[in-house]
Amino acid sequence: MMDANKYKPGYFPPQENEYRWVKKDHIEHAPMWCSVDLRDGNQALVVPMDLEEKLEFYQMLLEIGFKEIEVGFPAASETEYEFLRTLIDHDLIPDDVTIQVLTQCRDHIIRKTFEAVKGAPRAVIHFYNSTSLAQREQVFKKSKEEIKQIAIEGARLVKKLSQEYEGNFLFEYSPESFTGTETDYALEVCNAVLDVMQPTPDRPMIINLPVTVEMSLPHVYANQIEYCSDRLKYRDAVILSTHPHNDRGTGVADTELALLAGAQRVECCLFGNGERTGNVDAITLAMNMYTHGVDPKLDFSNMPSIVERYERLTRMHVSPRQPYAGQLVFAAFSGSHQDAIAKGMKWREDKELLEWSVPYIPLDPHDVSRTYDSDVIRINSQSGKGGIGYILETSYGYTLPPKMREHFGYTVKSVSDHAHKELSPEEVLEIFEKTYVNKDHPVYVREAHFKQGRMTEATVTALIGGRKIELVAVGNGRLDAVCNALKEGLGVSFTLQSYNEHSLDQGSHSRAAGYVGIAWEDGHYTWGAGTDTDIIRASIKALVSAINNGLKEEE
Amino acid sequence: MMDANKYKPGYFPPQENEYRWVKKDHIEHAPMWCSVDLRDGNQALVVPMDLEEKLEFYQMLLEIGFKEIEVGFPAASETEYEFLRTLIDHDLIPDDVTIQVLTQCRDHIIRKTFEAVKGAPRAVIHFYNSTSLAQREQVFKKSKEEIKQIAIEGARLVKKLSQEYEGNFLFEYSPESFTGTETDYALEVCNAVLDVMQPTPDRPMIINLPVTVEMSLPHVYANQIEYCSDRLKYRDAVILSTHPHNDRGTGVADTELALLAGAQRVECCLFGNGERTGNVDAITLAMNMYTHGVDPKLDFSNMPSIVERYERLTRMHVSPRQPYAGQLVFAAFSGSHQDAIAKGMKWREDKELLEWSVPYIPLDPHDVSRTYDSDVIRINSQSGKGGIGYILETSYGYTLPPKMREHFGYTVKSVSDHAHKELSPEEVLEIFEKTYVNKDHPVYVREAHFKQGRMTEATVTALIGGRKIELVAVGNGRLDAVCNALKEGLGVSFTLQSYNEHSLDQGSHSRAAGYVGIAWEDGHYTWGAGTDTDIIRASIKALVSAINNGLKEEE
Repeated sequence: MMDANKYKPGYFPPQENEYRWVKKDHIEHAPMWCSVDLRDGNQALVVPMDLEEKLEFYQMLLEIGFKEIEVGFPAASETEYEFLRTLIDHDLIPDDVTIQVLTQCRDHIIRKTFEAVKGAPRAVIHFYNSTSLAQREQVFKKSKEEIKQIAIEGARLVKKLSQEYEGNFLFEYSPESFTGTETDYALEVCNAVLDVMQPTPDRPMIINLPVTVEMSLPHVYANQIEYCSDRLKYRDAVILSTHPHNDRGTGVADTELALLAGAQRVECCLFGNGERTGNVDAITLAMNMYTHGVDPKLDFSNMPSIVERYERLTRMHVSPRQPYAGQLVFAAFSGSHQDAIAKGMKWREDKELLEWSVPYIPLDPHDVSRTYDSDVIRINSQSGKGGIGYILETSYGYTLPPKMREHFGYTVKSVSDHAHKELSPEEVLEIFEKTYVNKDHPVYVREAHFKQGRMTEATVTALIGGRKIELVAVGNGRLDAVCNALKEGLGVSFTLQSYNEHSLDQGSHSRAAGYVGIAWEDGHYTWGAGTDTDIIRASIKALVSAINNGLKEEE
Repeated sequence: MMDANKYKPGYFPPQENEYRWVKKDHIEHAPMWCSVDLRDGNQALVVPMDLEEKLEFYQMLLEIGFKEIEVGFPAASETEYEFLRTLIDHDLIPDDVTIQVLTQCRDHIIRKTFEAVKGAPRAVIHFYNSTSLAQREQVFKKSKEEIKQIAIEGARLVKKLSQEYEGNFLFEYSPESFTGTETDYALEVCNAVLDVMQPTPDRPMIINLPVTVEMSLPHVYANQIEYCSDRLKYRDAVILSTHPHNDRGTGVADTELALLAGAQRVECCLFGNGERTGNVDAITLAMNMYTHGVDPKLDFSNMPSIVERYERLTRMHVSPRQPYAGQLVFAAFSGSHQDAIAKGMKWREDKELLEWSVPYIPLDPHDVSRTYDSDVIRINSQSGKGGIGYILETSYGYTLPPKMREHFGYTVKSVSDHAHKELSPEEVLEIFEKTYVNKDHPVYVREAHFKQGRMTEATVTALIGGRKIELVAVGNGRLDAVCNALKEGLGVSFTLQSYNEHSLDQGSHSRAAGYVGIAWEDGHYTWGAGTDTDIIRASIKALVSAINNGLKEEE
């Protein structure tokens, strides 16, 4: 049963703010990215990755371009310890990459962590303790002062051991459960830790204000970041970091607004993996910047392969609606969308534009190795002539005249509606061919010979219902003459209303495609198409197909 | 290949803003909700719903509490027309529910729409045309003035037909692709439509400013909403509506910030279904309000059933990380999280609090018909003693002493780590029983009789490695006497360090569970547990189990 009286907002907005961030419009350069896939992400898997799987994931993170990678909580898990030692002992950390290890502010855990990380070329020691009201009361049963002392003692030990152990150590402190902590108190704890660590602009320290649990609207978090950014000591020696979770579905917004408000670094996971609803998705953040013209300094051009490896290694699935990566995120089934996209694509091509501004598709699918035909224009009962025509044109080269495209659109929609399924480009082609192309029953034209004068005379050898017949007629052109011959031979009346032709293939073996629309006596219209290496034969086949479609309808 | 030079921000922030919204902290009351599942959601499915499926989905929307439901684009699809007529002709629209139909601003489509909706008890006629720069240039090749005229002409026809057709009609206008439209121009078009429609506070009209494609950070959209809200004509007769999509993963944030900025109504879909990355998720929005103590006026207490029906009817899947609804969103695998949750649950129980403030879990899973045991505390190699002990206690009643819980924690983690899988509560119990409970080899105590004096004398009949032996010893209590008898009989030396016992079941057939920890000569510790209806036998079994675990380790 739902009873809203059980809840009240559990976060603490700052007392005052300058709200400078709200006047900024977009993010102007990439932040420092830290992947926490191998720690926070891995920890949230039903079956965590084993050593081999972690190594493959780590290589993928390097390939994408992450320069900071949290590799685990080595004091808490044997696998994470082993993984860390493998990286160090097998020299798997490139020169421009820093690994990061997590530790609680507890004496024996900090010691174990240094033991695990010793000899690392560069490592961030990320120490934390929980500072929230709920955890102070319910879990630790300690006062604000006592909790602050835990952080201070932790910082002292980290500093001391970093001088004793071999390795190049950097530091990060998180007041865990920051979003459930009084903002001023979190700031007080961070400043106390900074007083111990004494960072300098040359050797800055990371202060991470995590959205451990997402509790507020995203602008409240941005206000907190702005407030803390303005009040942290040693500010020019502090890298202000975020680590948003997504409990309220606004992890991306938290991060983006925080970056406007003074945050400089983001801890994130691919595809928003992580505890519960996940950590903020690195891909959405990076691609959001990219589609604003900002180089994100992460490379997702190999997206289908990244999806494949992610799914295999984590045993999770990437949702079809996952921004920039899901199967359906470029898809347009609706007729009006397809029409606008097809026109936008053509506009861009005609004008030879680099700039991408195609309606409804905020990212050029090619940038992430996706396709236009099978990923964008998808055909079902909701689709329209624009999209269906687009598929036929871009996949198979058939450019139907507008009215024929409309007729074909209804035909395809109706097939999809009755079959209750999506149609592939191949199936659309099949419907096209079956409905219009080179239809030779009941009428089939075997041969046509022409004599040119003021008028054109056609001698047509045709099979009508299997019976051979020779017909002669004149017209003001070859097709018109054939048309007249057939009208006479069949004893029917129609007018040729529409004729179009274009080459179908390139080169010397090219075929032509012809399209003919005819209006019958009673006013109804039928369409036909023909293909042939000879342009006259193609147009005659189109005409005959249109006639056959009219005769069949009468049967 | 990724090349950020292809892109630039395609939206138009307002020239000036008061930014009143940024000072507000949370949403204070539920907006008007309009489900667009049956239109925008359905349109984005690989296989759209058929009539029967739509009817079942519609009933679910009513059950959840939606009072406005967009039922389709009846002029564009046969199925949507049929569905609409079924609702009207079979009287399926409750008195407090309004249906809504969508139509482009085109003469024949508007006429078809009125034909389709005639006789409806109450219906919103939602008319739209696309106003964005990209669509004006690339798709319609029309000027601003011409596009505005399309809206005005549409409004005039809608107004005229609404007077001619039977039915109770309300109106909504959307400048489609609002987010790609110059804000002042969109406002100009909306005000022109309002001038035609002349709404009054008694018969207000909906102006919907859709995030047709998400193009900006969410606060930019909020700024646009504030700007338009302040400048729309007939403002007290306008219901300002949002319709956010999720291309940048910030649809929820768009909506929430827009509601702070003046929006009064939300068009949304369950589970964020809809074109491409989807429409904004109604469930996340509603539950976000709920966890701030605000009644959302939608009921999701029946979540597992809603998930089941949604998945079956749309053939989509709800992601395990979908806020409030996914399989993993309450799950804690990590030891420290489990420990905090277990303590938070106990704290709430002990204090008999209504208020929910358990760490790491922003929603009481029971509110949406989820469970604590199988949904929250989940056991794998990342888990800790707190969570594992919690499972054993809440599912099976075993309350281990802290040090034994730690030993058991390592045992379970190691089983999960080596089996490389999650463990169910049943499997945790099995490991517990196999490791500690009533272990009878090599030592088995068949009988023990006691004589009470200043000291207690125990006569113990035991099987040791199958050989029967009778032992007599004294101690300062029964368990101590048995302990001494066994030490003597086995010729080993240990001290009983820890003893605990509690009843396991309720009522007259209740059993007791005893826990014994012993320290051996070399300093190592072993644990045992015993269960029996007799409290003495339970404690002896626990002792014998601890001894057997020690002897086995020596083998």
